[in-house]
Amino acid sequence: MRTLEFDANGPALVLVDQTRLPRETVYVTCRSAEDVAHAIRSMQVRGAPAIGVAAAYGLALAALAQSTENSATFMAALQKAAEDLRQTRPTAVNLQWALDRVLQRARTTLGVKGVKAAKQGVLALADEMADEDVAVNRRIGAHGLSLVSPSANILTHCNAGALATVDYGTALGVVRAAHEAGRDIHVFVDETRPFLQGARLTAWELQRLGVPMTLITDSMAGYFMSRGKVDLVVVGADRIAANGDVANKIGTYSVAVLARENGVPFYVAAPISTIDLALASGAEIPIEERASREVTEVLGTPIAPEGVQAAHPAFDVTPARLVTAIVTERGVLRPPYSESLAAAVRAYETVVA
Amino acid sequence: MRTLEFDANGPALVLVDQTRLPRETVYVTCRSAEDVAHAIRSMQVRGAPAIGVAAAYGLALAALAQSTENSATFMAALQKAAEDLRQTRPTAVNLQWALDRVLQRARTTLGVKGVKAAKQGVLALADEMADEDVAVNRRIGAHGLSLVSPSANILTHCNAGALATVDYGTALGVVRAAHEAGRDIHVFVDETRPFLQGARLTAWELQRLGVPMTLITDSMAGYFMSRGKVDLVVVGADRIAANGDVANKIGTYSVAVLARENGVPFYVAAPISTIDLALASGAEIPIEERASREVTEVLGTPIAPEGVQAAHPAFDVTPARLVTAIVTERGVLRPPYSESLAAAVRAYETVVA
Repeated sequence: MRTLEFDANGPALVLVDQTRLPRETVYVTCRSAEDVAHAIRSMQVRGAPAIGVAAAYGLALAALAQSTENSATFMAALQKAAEDLRQTRPTAVNLQWALDRVLQRARTTLGVKGVKAAKQGVLALADEMADEDVAVNRRIGAHGLSLVSPSANILTHCNAGALATVDYGTALGVVRAAHEAGRDIHVFVDETRPFLQGARLTAWELQRLGVPMTLITDSMAGYFMSRGKVDLVVVGADRIAANGDVANKIGTYSVAVLARENGVPFYVAAPISTIDLALASGAEIPIEERASREVTEVLGTPIAPEGVQAAHPAFDVTPARLVTAIVTERGVLRPPYSESLAAAVRAYETVVA
Repeated sequence: MRTLEFDANGPALVLVDQTRLPRETVYVTCRSAEDVAHAIRSMQVRGAPAIGVAAAYGLALAALAQSTENSATFMAALQKAAEDLRQTRPTAVNLQWALDRVLQRARTTLGVKGVKAAKQGVLALADEMADEDVAVNRRIGAHGLSLVSPSANILTHCNAGALATVDYGTALGVVRAAHEAGRDIHVFVDETRPFLQGARLTAWELQRLGVPMTLITDSMAGYFMSRGKVDLVVVGADRIAANGDVANKIGTYSVAVLARENGVPFYVAAPISTIDLALASGAEIPIEERASREVTEVLGTPIAPEGVQAAHPAFDVTPARLVTAIVTERGVLRPPYSESLAAAVRAYETVVA
């Protein structure tokens, strides 16, 4: 199944619980916007595109739960649910983008056709966004293919795969497209402490796809680059500022610096919805701070002496100057990003509008 | 107690089991050279200076165990034990240095005074080396003090503390000297996957010393440097080539590249015995490959899907151009290292001879 699927009979959003993979494949059933907010906050569902679509379904659940026929009451309840969902994770902009898009659809439909139609409109949009995400990722993969040499050694950080999206993946979409095209690729998978998205999720996905890989600790990426073992890096993104600065999982910045030092191209693969032209640079991107315990424990086992405090910034910002190209569904964007990003977003808005 | 202590009544070498810290303080009693070799290989004792002294005591145990009065038979047994100990870990040169020094003492004493005196001579030298290590580390700390500003934020990788030595530490010797001098320092402790020497050992040492610290994942070091939160980096070393290239725990190279990128000084603290003038550059330093399972598991808990293979280079090489200075017991050495290292080693050999 997809990372998340809507069950109209519930109604409910059913998610693969990503905190339990790879040891167990367990599904979480979210019957309300609150359930969805909890799933996002606890990282049962994670990855910028996936939490965007999950949040859209969260609003659909909030809409369907309304018994009122009053448009204002309905809209107020929807806005309340949107605010709760918006607070769950601050860094990825896809979440904001998805919520705003759904609220906009609700408002438009409500004005013309009333509450019942708005409910259906909101759910229909969430479904559209889910399908759109998969199609967008396949296009990202197709565009990214041009960057992958026939027997490339690719390094990736975190998980920007099917699990970070509705299906197929962004950075792993590029890997997958290369694998499907018959290229003899091999992937170095950064384990991605503290949450281990690489070791738990990316390794799981690549194993199922039959893509040759080697798991490494985050501290080994530089070693393999310095020995000429890495041909390119490809990662996802949680938010891209107007100047091309990229917020992504903590550790991405280090990989980018090491790639530059070793002459390895560093690519970011992300949908246009990840681009936030409202922010001039990455300095304005809010960085989520998560619990110390997610660092001082690994899968529930303490690794540090009791009482030791850890820092836990969940993301970092890679400056645009370290980014070789950004692969989107509208093509491979190159520096200067202030121009290429703006043009791609304008073209995208024309299509959506 | 010290990290390792000799019990003449055993006779035995007693070690703190560093695979069990910080959860349990358990001691390992090594009654033979084979026991010591096992303790080194399994990393119950680790850290370049500590394994050097442990190996010296391993030879002392091998010497004391001989019942022969024949010098040639005695020396052959000692050489056999030395070869077994030499094979345990290839990267740290201190191990080779310690074994060669003990063999030399055995040969010299044997020629003049016979087997019984050689046994005592070997044990006396191991004791000397243990005391010398502590004295050397205190001198490293004193020299390093000049590099630490009054309220410095110091980042360290792995554990180059009391546990990596007989006592006091090299990189943490500098930290400790600054703390003892009343400086208001704070330490960012890289957790140091896969073996977690930072989270388990450095955090444990700093907590006992009362030095303020923050534990971070290895992937966060660049983030804190890029935000101006790190004033200097200090790490230990397992081998330093004649040109100043430094082999140290995997991930050190990444820290050095990130330090350079962010204008943060990168210091290496190590005894002269870590310098290997026989190697022209770091390219000649053998890098130990350890078991995949040490990466795919954390403290016995699997973190990756079954069947996933991991790479495990245990060390990496930081090129001399990224090293701001090397702090030794004979002072702070600066580039060009081909000159300053050679001069320091010559001065050291004059003292020892």
